[in-house]
Amino acid sequence: MRWAAVLAGGSGTRFWPLSTAAAPKQFLPLAGPQPLIVDAVSRLRGLIPEERTLVITAAAYVDETRRLLSHLPAENILGEPQAASTGPALAWATHVAQQRDPEASVLSLHADWFVGNALAFRETADAALDVAERFDTLVTVGIVPTRPDVGYGYIVPGEQLDGDARRVDRFEEKPDGERATALIEQGALWNSGLFAWRAERFAAESASLAPEIGPFYGKLTHGDITGFFAAVTPIAVDKSHFERSERVAVVPGRFEWDDVGTWAALGRVRSADPEGNVAVGDDVFVHDAANCVVWSEDGPVVLDGVEDVVVVRARGIVLVTTRARAAQLKELLEHLPPELRDIS
Amino acid sequence: MRWAAVLAGGSGTRFWPLSTAAAPKQFLPLAGPQPLIVDAVSRLRGLIPEERTLVITAAAYVDETRRLLSHLPAENILGEPQAASTGPALAWATHVAQQRDPEASVLSLHADWFVGNALAFRETADAALDVAERFDTLVTVGIVPTRPDVGYGYIVPGEQLDGDARRVDRFEEKPDGERATALIEQGALWNSGLFAWRAERFAAESASLAPEIGPFYGKLTHGDITGFFAAVTPIAVDKSHFERSERVAVVPGRFEWDDVGTWAALGRVRSADPEGNVAVGDDVFVHDAANCVVWSEDGPVVLDGVEDVVVVRARGIVLVTTRARAAQLKELLEHLPPELRDIS
Repeated sequence: MRWAAVLAGGSGTRFWPLSTAAAPKQFLPLAGPQPLIVDAVSRLRGLIPEERTLVITAAAYVDETRRLLSHLPAENILGEPQAASTGPALAWATHVAQQRDPEASVLSLHADWFVGNALAFRETADAALDVAERFDTLVTVGIVPTRPDVGYGYIVPGEQLDGDARRVDRFEEKPDGERATALIEQGALWNSGLFAWRAERFAAESASLAPEIGPFYGKLTHGDITGFFAAVTPIAVDKSHFERSERVAVVPGRFEWDDVGTWAALGRVRSADPEGNVAVGDDVFVHDAANCVVWSEDGPVVLDGVEDVVVVRARGIVLVTTRARAAQLKELLEHLPPELRDIS
Repeated sequence: MRWAAVLAGGSGTRFWPLSTAAAPKQFLPLAGPQPLIVDAVSRLRGLIPEERTLVITAAAYVDETRRLLSHLPAENILGEPQAASTGPALAWATHVAQQRDPEASVLSLHADWFVGNALAFRETADAALDVAERFDTLVTVGIVPTRPDVGYGYIVPGEQLDGDARRVDRFEEKPDGERATALIEQGALWNSGLFAWRAERFAAESASLAPEIGPFYGKLTHGDITGFFAAVTPIAVDKSHFERSERVAVVPGRFEWDDVGTWAALGRVRSADPEGNVAVGDDVFVHDAANCVVWSEDGPVVLDGVEDVVVVRARGIVLVTTRARAAQLKELLEHLPPELRDIS
């Protein structure tokens, strides 16, 4: 049967000062009225039932995740004892699914995305699972790009497998703008992180291709999760499995998708006024401004005559930056005095 | 003897949200640690004693003005029953001085200026009073311009009167940038509003040249201040006296002077970091920004990667605008919902 593995491990500095260690991105209502993680699980409705939806998060976030997803069985919320990137996390979740259901196939997704069309998302996910099951491949969904984004990885599709599904020619990580434009002209797709595989196939590829993870499956089998995470080498599943396996396919996704990676993303995923301003908060007043993003939950914010500015008023702090700079918030945080940076 | 008439009538919207009806600009510590009005009176020390310093303000501000200037005799704080611009206000103050001292000469200044060098200010004021007394003229101090500011009025000096003092050829109100540059090349000076006259001369010019004010002096003589302000037509002293009189002289002022007219002025009158940022407040953090003005008294403000931006966090409100737009704050306020605009 089909299972979902929802990755919800983000620790959240990219939405500072709103996101904090105690309130990472997936818990925040960034793209709409509900926390992103609630949207992510709701989006699966009709495709994968709640009892087969697993959520992998940090041990510290298990309680809050269970509270937000109270309709899921408590044992489906898996708390990682330590972070080890997506390879080990998905090995664990896939192993859990396989233990409960030896014929499991798994759809892997992230808890902190914006998706414009849930129906198209489910159709694509269904197609990806279908390809994974019929061809016994690791499947990645490649989003049809809408702009030469330099923050994403790209997938160059190869020969046709079946219908829309193709083999993967290669992956290209974060190209510059010119290269991104050239890639899009060649038909390259965004590597979203929406994946599908048969659990058995994933385990087999782990054993044969991923020395960072494969040798430690025994610990998972014996329930020694702490030992497993202590033993593995942190590695993204893209590297540990997709870039090494011969059995990789790509299915195109034609829905609006955004990884909501920076404050600037709110300008895409939230509805904007005619001048392109996105204002979230009851008391935001924007006058003669363009392409600004304003988030306020502490009180009034008034913008006048500015462009491309991001203003966040949260947790007692006011941040004023630009849409472009919002992508480098981490660098700013390194310069901030700790009492400002490490707000709770 | 010499008297001072300090105009402190501002109602203060130009420093919103910090300045309010209850806290107009002259009460705020905009240029340094003390309220502007305290600086203005301190600046006279050694030139004009406190018992001969009069302050004209709105009736509503009399109590706070007396509190801030507690070293002045309470009866020297004059509360206007209604605003009528500087002509009637200075007619009243000059009349009060003349009643107490028939030989009074008056130095007129504003409570809300920045002055870079108090000693040079006093020397210039002394020279202006001297010219007013010796030549029985209305004297205006013309500040030697440091930039082609389009927000100021200009004085074009005429023939020499004595030493630095010259007659005034003409006044030019707020020229455009090109005209301002041309005026400066011709030797024009900024019309600061620092004036001097003999009280008797001012009254004589009121009677013969200012029909908006002159006919109502009887009310002042009879102590009917309310009747006087109800009867006069509001008019600036520049228009009622200086532009009409044949007895006008200009004395150059070679000190740093600013009327602190907008938030952008803080970029000039406060000390800036090497990138030209002025930050006022304990919890302001500026990273990779240039030519910004930040004022915070409600909590942390963090700026990253912005230029020419003005951020004010005061009275629970956050304002984000530009240095250029700060001059048009009044226009913004007209668009604001009343609950934001009329903060107290």
